[in-house]
Amino acid sequence: MLPLLLFLFLLRPYSTTLNAETITTINVWPKPRNLTWTSPHQTTLLSPTFTITTTTPHNNNHLTAAITRYTNLVKTEHHRPLIPPTSNHSNNLPPLSSLTISVTDPNAELIHGTDESYTLTVTTSNAKLTALTAWGAMRGLETFSQLAWGYPTRVAVDVRVWDAPLYGHRGVMLDTSRNYYPVKDLLRMVEAMSMNKVNVFHWHITDSHSFPLVVPSEPSLAEKGAYDVNMVYTIEDVKKVVEFGLDRGVRVLPEIDSPGHTGSWALAYPEIVTCANMFWWPAESDWPNRLASEPGTGHLNPLNPKTYKVLKNVIRDVTTLFPENFYHSGADEVIPGCWKTDPTIQNFLLNGGTLNQVLETFINNTLPFIISLNRTVVYWEDVLLDETVHVQSAVLPKEHVILQTWKNGHNNTKRIVSSGYRAIVSSSDFYYLDCGHGDFTGNNSAYDNQTGSDKNNGGSWCGPFKTWQTIYNYDIADGLTEEEAKLVLGGEVSLWSEQADETVLDSRIWPRTSAMAESLWSGNMDEKGMKRYAEATDRLTEWRSRMVRRGIGAEPIQPLWCIRNPGMCNTVYPI
Amino acid sequence: MLPLLLFLFLLRPYSTTLNAETITTINVWPKPRNLTWTSPHQTTLLSPTFTITTTTPHNNNHLTAAITRYTNLVKTEHHRPLIPPTSNHSNNLPPLSSLTISVTDPNAELIHGTDESYTLTVTTSNAKLTALTAWGAMRGLETFSQLAWGYPTRVAVDVRVWDAPLYGHRGVMLDTSRNYYPVKDLLRMVEAMSMNKVNVFHWHITDSHSFPLVVPSEPSLAEKGAYDVNMVYTIEDVKKVVEFGLDRGVRVLPEIDSPGHTGSWALAYPEIVTCANMFWWPAESDWPNRLASEPGTGHLNPLNPKTYKVLKNVIRDVTTLFPENFYHSGADEVIPGCWKTDPTIQNFLLNGGTLNQVLETFINNTLPFIISLNRTVVYWEDVLLDETVHVQSAVLPKEHVILQTWKNGHNNTKRIVSSGYRAIVSSSDFYYLDCGHGDFTGNNSAYDNQTGSDKNNGGSWCGPFKTWQTIYNYDIADGLTEEEAKLVLGGEVSLWSEQADETVLDSRIWPRTSAMAESLWSGNMDEKGMKRYAEATDRLTEWRSRMVRRGIGAEPIQPLWCIRNPGMCNTVYPI
Repeated sequence: MLPLLLFLFLLRPYSTTLNAETITTINVWPKPRNLTWTSPHQTTLLSPTFTITTTTPHNNNHLTAAITRYTNLVKTEHHRPLIPPTSNHSNNLPPLSSLTISVTDPNAELIHGTDESYTLTVTTSNAKLTALTAWGAMRGLETFSQLAWGYPTRVAVDVRVWDAPLYGHRGVMLDTSRNYYPVKDLLRMVEAMSMNKVNVFHWHITDSHSFPLVVPSEPSLAEKGAYDVNMVYTIEDVKKVVEFGLDRGVRVLPEIDSPGHTGSWALAYPEIVTCANMFWWPAESDWPNRLASEPGTGHLNPLNPKTYKVLKNVIRDVTTLFPENFYHSGADEVIPGCWKTDPTIQNFLLNGGTLNQVLETFINNTLPFIISLNRTVVYWEDVLLDETVHVQSAVLPKEHVILQTWKNGHNNTKRIVSSGYRAIVSSSDFYYLDCGHGDFTGNNSAYDNQTGSDKNNGGSWCGPFKTWQTIYNYDIADGLTEEEAKLVLGGEVSLWSEQADETVLDSRIWPRTSAMAESLWSGNMDEKGMKRYAEATDRLTEWRSRMVRRGIGAEPIQPLWCIRNPGMCNTVYPI
Repeated sequence: MLPLLLFLFLLRPYSTTLNAETITTINVWPKPRNLTWTSPHQTTLLSPTFTITTTTPHNNNHLTAAITRYTNLVKTEHHRPLIPPTSNHSNNLPPLSSLTISVTDPNAELIHGTDESYTLTVTTSNAKLTALTAWGAMRGLETFSQLAWGYPTRVAVDVRVWDAPLYGHRGVMLDTSRNYYPVKDLLRMVEAMSMNKVNVFHWHITDSHSFPLVVPSEPSLAEKGAYDVNMVYTIEDVKKVVEFGLDRGVRVLPEIDSPGHTGSWALAYPEIVTCANMFWWPAESDWPNRLASEPGTGHLNPLNPKTYKVLKNVIRDVTTLFPENFYHSGADEVIPGCWKTDPTIQNFLLNGGTLNQVLETFINNTLPFIISLNRTVVYWEDVLLDETVHVQSAVLPKEHVILQTWKNGHNNTKRIVSSGYRAIVSSSDFYYLDCGHGDFTGNNSAYDNQTGSDKNNGGSWCGPFKTWQTIYNYDIADGLTEEEAKLVLGGEVSLWSEQADETVLDSRIWPRTSAMAESLWSGNMDEKGMKRYAEATDRLTEWRSRMVRRGIGAEPIQPLWCIRNPGMCNTVYPI
């Protein structure tokens, strides 16, 4: 123990002025690339007749919808910040009566690489937003909405923003097969994504557990494969989600996972699925002889011609339903044991064939077809990198194929881009939102343990839980050359739904996805090149609070006490 | 790799008849001690004029309220089970028109040890519920409500239940200081507790972060110490929660943590709090020289007479507000460094005094007072077992003191009961619901890690996440003699609110608390003495589904697919 006086000497006085900058500047999340609010910080009232208009006529209905929505939001939100920005409110300034938007190319499509940059200036006389595209204008509108708060509504003036994302692909993957999510919950998620400038909803629609998508030309798949007649996504539902996304600058990227993860297809077409309805992990079997990575078996049979008849109908309809020009074809976790249960495949193997050839047959029978529908095809990395079953890169033309990485952190990102493929990063060590809640499988004796000594993952294969800081700090292009880094399109957090449904959708996704959103939009470093997670903490608490007021059930990251006492909840003092 | 034919031999066929018993019997959670539903299982309709009455008049308003509530529930719930019980519905049976309740002692108080046993019989002609107390009758009413489902409502008949809890104390501890919970959320939690036959809401009301309780004789504590004028619990709020609990057989046990965890008191009375508003963890300091276990410093000063003036006012008012005859006085985590910042205590130490004596002074100035108010006092185990600051057991009369254990699993339970104290078990290795979500402190460089190699607790001091199975399987009296085991009153799961507020209240607490509820009510073993977690899985999914329909946002534990395919989501086949 330290001598008492020495100990007292070590104590440092508490000062509320430390970190004052953090809480007195205006909070926009994700932090813009460049935002200045001229000192002394001034605000003015929002005029009751406030309007948002465009400088020239346009016929982009999505932009019109966004303008209507944001006009209503800024006039009615009356957000109450936890720590109001320190500012001078002058009654002499005229109220802000309008925001004028100028869009160079209002008809530019919402596709990967669309320009999302914007500039926003709010002066004492007016507010102006300029963007190349409607999608950039939507980002600027979101920023503008975050410059307003209070009752009556006040707006920061003498603000200048230039903004643009570091990465074009900033997504959330949601699995709607293991558990079903009502459409209203999907819409709320998309709404929150747009608040965070997250622009891709990667919809993992189908899997072995249920087939909720109503496919017009193959209606029996959902009729028999959905959990319930009410637990489906109809054509109208899909249109609603797609349109809702377009109104908010969010692409809806469909995934029909195949050839693995297709057990639910067997309810309509048992003849095209191998190993359906078998126990996933026969006793004593090692990985190649398991039937599935987890409960829920079934792989499409690449050697059965009927497989392609059904699958091509599905692909054709999905590309009709979803205008998005990326199509995700899955191809993760092909398990040898599953295909080996099928007599046709057994014969093929006995005659010298290999499982790699079986997968290659599948890819060759589907990839050119998807490409012919004007789609860029996304696969999970397994199709090329899986140790037991994969294809050669010659089968996967680089101009048409993107690989999504989820294993081995930076190593597999490097392998993908150094091979010349574009990559979407979803490292399970950093970006998997479901991790850390234990294993979901039943009768697991590992949990019958009276010592409390299990201090590891608690049964979660990808544990521990990914904190917002873990996500925020992940550098998706770490260790890549400049050329390689250009092939990284961006990243996606993933929520697999073994232990999730609408009851926990908001809290699993938010505010952790906000952490990714900022990291991929404007980075995770300050002007000096230092990681800014310390400074981001109070900002994220503030932003989470605004999301909650907007109806998103984001979970808290700290006691409210912490933002009220800047720096005092730090691990190391002062910051 | 296994030869192909041998491998195929290992695969076992899938049969839906396995575990059929699990899903065809009626699901009541927690499982009653004894429930029989005579074969062939029959149901009848609930009469539209169904009533619940008592055999003799009584003047227990809480029982009357429960009868009204359950009458409405069984008539309007129309629960749709995921897997409906297999039964024969006969249109020839008369509809069930009434449930008759016979209570031996309707005025028995709701205190620890109150008899909660009941018998329930539902025959083709009538339903009868008998209990010694109103509280036992409420347990039986809950069970009855779970025997009904469907539209129109049908009820299982030829059912006989005898039921009683293994442990009298089955609780949830909720911390409303680190983050605030609106009253409506507390009520919903109490409602869910009663559904699960959980009977103690241990309300950790105050702590260093905020003081939300309006204490009539010390109003400045909440005026200055609450987060906001709207983030308080008024006298009316407390009455509402207490009455709401009584209507549901749930005791509301208040905790005013002291002498540690009292930083929020300093906003009203800085002179009675040591080390308030100081940084919690001075650089390089080890545990005894930290100022708090986590951010938020402040200990009441036992050597300042004014401390007792304020504290006794608080204690007196709290015992008036809460009729519950247990009073929780906290006394956890007294940190030497905090007291050592105070000149009076420094002097005391320089003159040969010890911190143990300082704590003893505190206990001797408060414990007799609380006892004089007819309260049994609960302390966290630290008061006796903490390694650095604790008192001798002579200071803590066993007939008046109960110790709540949270450290070192079974070891500390054993130490408590083998010393002759009664114990409430809240082992942080098993029963802490907040664990596994990372550390909440800011600027922690541990999360800036590009390797993804942190496979341990992910920053959570008590990680990993406690799964429902971990909770279900914990044997709170493991390793105790029969005599010692009698001193274990029961257990409590705890939700500390660093990273929780109303947005995640339901999902953090449910259905994991249901796991504790069954384990403490009827145990975690089947008739053969084998752990029944495997069999409990589908039942818990079914029960969680009913809770969700009742408005409790309990999180899912498996894909819906699992209960639809019994045994197929197991770790080991078949069960």
